[in-house]
Amino acid sequence: MRPTGRLHLGHYWGVLVNYLELQNQADCFFMVADLHALTTGELAKVEVGKNTRELLLDWLSVGVDPDKATLFVQSAVPEHCELTVLLSMFTSVGWLERNPTYKEQKQELGEKNTGSLGFLSYPVLQTVDVCLYKATHVPVGEDQKPHLEMGRELIRRFNATYKKNVFPEFVPLLTPTAKLPGLDGRKMSKSYGNTVELADSPEVIQKKVSRMLTDTQRPRREDPGHPENCPVFTYHQLFTPKDRVTQIAAECRAATLSCFDDKKALADQIIAWSEPIRKKRAELEKEPTYIDEIIKKGNQKARNIASQTIREVLDVMGFWPGSNR
Amino acid sequence: MRPTGRLHLGHYWGVLVNYLELQNQADCFFMVADLHALTTGELAKVEVGKNTRELLLDWLSVGVDPDKATLFVQSAVPEHCELTVLLSMFTSVGWLERNPTYKEQKQELGEKNTGSLGFLSYPVLQTVDVCLYKATHVPVGEDQKPHLEMGRELIRRFNATYKKNVFPEFVPLLTPTAKLPGLDGRKMSKSYGNTVELADSPEVIQKKVSRMLTDTQRPRREDPGHPENCPVFTYHQLFTPKDRVTQIAAECRAATLSCFDDKKALADQIIAWSEPIRKKRAELEKEPTYIDEIIKKGNQKARNIASQTIREVLDVMGFWPGSNR
Repeated sequence: MRPTGRLHLGHYWGVLVNYLELQNQADCFFMVADLHALTTGELAKVEVGKNTRELLLDWLSVGVDPDKATLFVQSAVPEHCELTVLLSMFTSVGWLERNPTYKEQKQELGEKNTGSLGFLSYPVLQTVDVCLYKATHVPVGEDQKPHLEMGRELIRRFNATYKKNVFPEFVPLLTPTAKLPGLDGRKMSKSYGNTVELADSPEVIQKKVSRMLTDTQRPRREDPGHPENCPVFTYHQLFTPKDRVTQIAAECRAATLSCFDDKKALADQIIAWSEPIRKKRAELEKEPTYIDEIIKKGNQKARNIASQTIREVLDVMGFWPGSNR
Repeated sequence: MRPTGRLHLGHYWGVLVNYLELQNQADCFFMVADLHALTTGELAKVEVGKNTRELLLDWLSVGVDPDKATLFVQSAVPEHCELTVLLSMFTSVGWLERNPTYKEQKQELGEKNTGSLGFLSYPVLQTVDVCLYKATHVPVGEDQKPHLEMGRELIRRFNATYKKNVFPEFVPLLTPTAKLPGLDGRKMSKSYGNTVELADSPEVIQKKVSRMLTDTQRPRREDPGHPENCPVFTYHQLFTPKDRVTQIAAECRAATLSCFDDKKALADQIIAWSEPIRKKRAELEKEPTYIDEIIKKGNQKARNIASQTIREVLDVMGFWPGSNR
């Protein structure tokens, strides 16, 4: 996950619920992709360190468990860069230029401004994030499937060059997720200013929820509402007990529940739901060295595996063994 | 220096004489650029490990001194890859595409075949080879000046982004070198098959020199020769004592010295000159672990400096200190 600031409820229902499931089922590696945070945006303004810490705090607060999964920071495992440079020898520039995301950005910027080499080559870095650990499954959304396909092609080329299956072919793990809209009904995104953050205080949650958009086809209090067209109701389905949800739908349709009261009820539910997250976060913030220790351990575990892979790769590629570390 | 196989006399007079001078005057870092060896050519056929060993043997045989300079292998210092990925965020793709060497190859290959990402980005890797050690002077030939200028631009951009002089601006060190032609008068190059290798046996040297091209304007033995137009004479100026050189020129002009005898005399001089090189090489080959130890020490010295630079760079860029190694 790229560190871009505090996580919001959209991240929780779109990604983190899967982390919490997967950590019980498989040998998971959860990585803070801090190098990726530099492939776009204005470099001097990227607060990569601060955002890395916030991301880790959010992970731990929601229950991502360092005793079950390996939590680590990409830049702390230099083998990511090493394998990226090695695989860049197998990567054709034309192939990277056909990456839809790159093409889009190039069109936006115009022909003259081509973006950074870091941005052009991020699919290689992304492939390394997977194959450095010989991972077989990558939990991604549908939109990430083309990137994974590029990565699969790249490792196939590497394996074919040396006639050896160094890297297993990984597959996308398409996990069903609930799409939580933003407070204004659009996609939840920091850039739209329509988020509720996992670490928001009860007061902030109350204020934000009170300004939520509701059913636009219920102009007056006494008009019957349409829960299926109301973002507030979508939220209820995730944060409110099932029987209460059925009740709310009925009351909204009968116009016995006002949007104002409905939002107040939702705010209470979100506040109650996020209470343990805030509590855990407060505990973690009281002991700043605790998180350092956890991540150092995770980084070390990741490096142990990564350095084994690198040794194997250098060997297969025929580098001088006398120079091996 | 890229490891491409055994070194020849052209390398000696073009590059190694400078190494031997410079190691007495400055804190020198001599690097086997084995990662660069993969930026061009057919990957499965690059014998990078074998060539790395040969290069190191040649260096030590001619007198490059591990007690005076730091000899190391690029792939053994992973910080090269690390800084390459970090600096790739500051490198515009358009700027790399304007690299004359890249443009040339792209034209040769045609529009569709764009070469590898490794080839496109080698000027970044090359810049890292210098700035990772905060080097101030880079001994290069005139033809390498544009590449160095690209590197200077890149580190200026990095320093400007963070308003801090992390990397000193390096300058090319243009050292005067003697151009030694190949046996056929063209540039000495393995691909032309016109080389004398530093490790060639006396028999091979004799055979190769006996087939050398001489003055084409001296068709018959009894015609007067023109030393200034004869590759053999160019060789004499480097391998034969000065007073004997003057004598040879006079005898050639007077047609008292035959081309056959002239070449025989030259072969003797080259064999005598290269005798200590062959002797040292034979010693080194008898003790294969000795070279391993030397390079391990050099690699470690290089890494100590490189990892300091990386720590500084990660810090300036604002990476999370908790994730530092």
